[in-house]
Amino acid sequence: MERVVIALGGNALQAKGSEPTAEEQLRIVRKTCEHIADISSRGYEIAIVHGNGPQIGRILLASETAKEVTPPMPFDVCGAMSQGYIGYHIQQALKYALSVRNRNYPVLTVVTQMVVDEDDPAFANPTKPIGAFYNREDASRLEEERGYVMREDAGRGFRRVVPSPIPRRIVEIDAIRNLWDTSIVISCGGGGIPVIERMDGTLEGVDAVIDKDFAAELLAEQVDADILMILTEVERVAIRWGRPDQEDLDHMSLKEAAAYVKEGQFAQGSMLPKVEAAMKFVRAYPNKRAVITSLDRAMDALEGKAGTVITFQ
Amino acid sequence: MERVVIALGGNALQAKGSEPTAEEQLRIVRKTCEHIADISSRGYEIAIVHGNGPQIGRILLASETAKEVTPPMPFDVCGAMSQGYIGYHIQQALKYALSVRNRNYPVLTVVTQMVVDEDDPAFANPTKPIGAFYNREDASRLEEERGYVMREDAGRGFRRVVPSPIPRRIVEIDAIRNLWDTSIVISCGGGGIPVIERMDGTLEGVDAVIDKDFAAELLAEQVDADILMILTEVERVAIRWGRPDQEDLDHMSLKEAAAYVKEGQFAQGSMLPKVEAAMKFVRAYPNKRAVITSLDRAMDALEGKAGTVITFQ
Repeated sequence: MERVVIALGGNALQAKGSEPTAEEQLRIVRKTCEHIADISSRGYEIAIVHGNGPQIGRILLASETAKEVTPPMPFDVCGAMSQGYIGYHIQQALKYALSVRNRNYPVLTVVTQMVVDEDDPAFANPTKPIGAFYNREDASRLEEERGYVMREDAGRGFRRVVPSPIPRRIVEIDAIRNLWDTSIVISCGGGGIPVIERMDGTLEGVDAVIDKDFAAELLAEQVDADILMILTEVERVAIRWGRPDQEDLDHMSLKEAAAYVKEGQFAQGSMLPKVEAAMKFVRAYPNKRAVITSLDRAMDALEGKAGTVITFQ
Repeated sequence: MERVVIALGGNALQAKGSEPTAEEQLRIVRKTCEHIADISSRGYEIAIVHGNGPQIGRILLASETAKEVTPPMPFDVCGAMSQGYIGYHIQQALKYALSVRNRNYPVLTVVTQMVVDEDDPAFANPTKPIGAFYNREDASRLEEERGYVMREDAGRGFRRVVPSPIPRRIVEIDAIRNLWDTSIVISCGGGGIPVIERMDGTLEGVDAVIDKDFAAELLAEQVDADILMILTEVERVAIRWGRPDQEDLDHMSLKEAAAYVKEGQFAQGSMLPKVEAAMKFVRAYPNKRAVITSLDRAMDALEGKAGTVITFQ
């Protein structure tokens, strides 16, 4: 039986343009879990990683808006809360989708910490915008009072930016490995809660966002998965994207992918990290494969009938 | 090796009168975890359940205060978020406290759903106050607009009250059992996220609060624990509490405990549910024991040198 680590993108949790409510998220998650349950039904052993961008943004926004009545939560705690929130929905919906297929597996969410390097260059250059938009004055005040780094965002005002360091070690990996044979585990939500490790072994939460595709890749390596499957909005990776001669790819070798990356074919913060995570996986395991596709083609993609497959050769 | 399910009270997470910040919670949790790590070091196999009253109240408060800028979260989601928040702190602090004792166990938080009966009489009579205080006018508006039940609270204004149904089934129990031999599991946080089970098997979150001592009791039964340990602010259960002839008990048989309960010796919503949970456990397992004590006497209590022990005979 092949082992698949599935990384769910934002569209698996929330439909574009829909109300950003928990009720709406649960509705979309239930649909998503039908696809995931189908994959499990075909005999694949799966684990799930999900993003948390919009959710952590709203948790932070609520927390900051209410700061006069209750103390605002630090960023790492907002991440932990988003794992509880999203994991709860996925485990509830997936358990049901599996049970109607007569697959009565435990499905559970493990709160996951991810160690990052204190001297990761990302800390010197925060890039990930999070939370609300502020005017220039409030932005300056936040920089002063809380040490935030604020950056102007596409003319819509100022937003806080946080670093996006490389994930180095999944703190809960032993337990996740132990669970693999008996359960479907949801872990590394939002890329994991970023922590740094002090000399004495203390872990300490930091204000950062970890790319969930890189987190999923690390998990796939560490559980010895056969397939890293990154689900997104499009069925296939494209080169010359949006141009008349756009080409959708059904396969890339590591070498081809590297060349496309060099040519700047993939958008930063969008397709680029997905392709890079896929490349990292097949570089680490040259006889395994990564697949980038959409949720509704995931099953076909596993059987080689859809999506973009990335292999070493 | 004896198996112990430890139920942590509010004072294990937040000191009385201190700022209700996440930073302060982490500071207290680190101290708490020193005690828990000591218990583990003596060779007891442990699992942890914790309360979430103040935390879920504040998450809800932030969510409702910010409702003009981001949609408020339903109560079940607030519960899931509180499990992420508190579990993250405990697993981070306990992992460290264990590692300095050369015990390198996985410690992990499992997001836990708890099935309650849809026709539990508690749903007809909500009793647990949660969240902010409102004036009479706003309270009426909330009753009308959202169907909340609001009740006057000790002259300080009106608060929402929610039902406190009996926990019936831990949805993630199989995984928690599987994890027992290899990990220290934090589960059933805040008593678990309350869900009801529809005829077709769908689980659905409900607005309710489950008593964490009853949740810990159910967990102790289902993992076949030897000891249910309920930690609170006082070292021992007392009768004639606060009177000159107050008597602190080092032992109660089931029969004695039942008599004290009948006499109204224990305060509702405080010592009473703890004693009732302890009674339920020894009734189910007549050759096992429950212990009620304080955090700093927990180790002594396990060795019979402190606390109140409840046994069948």
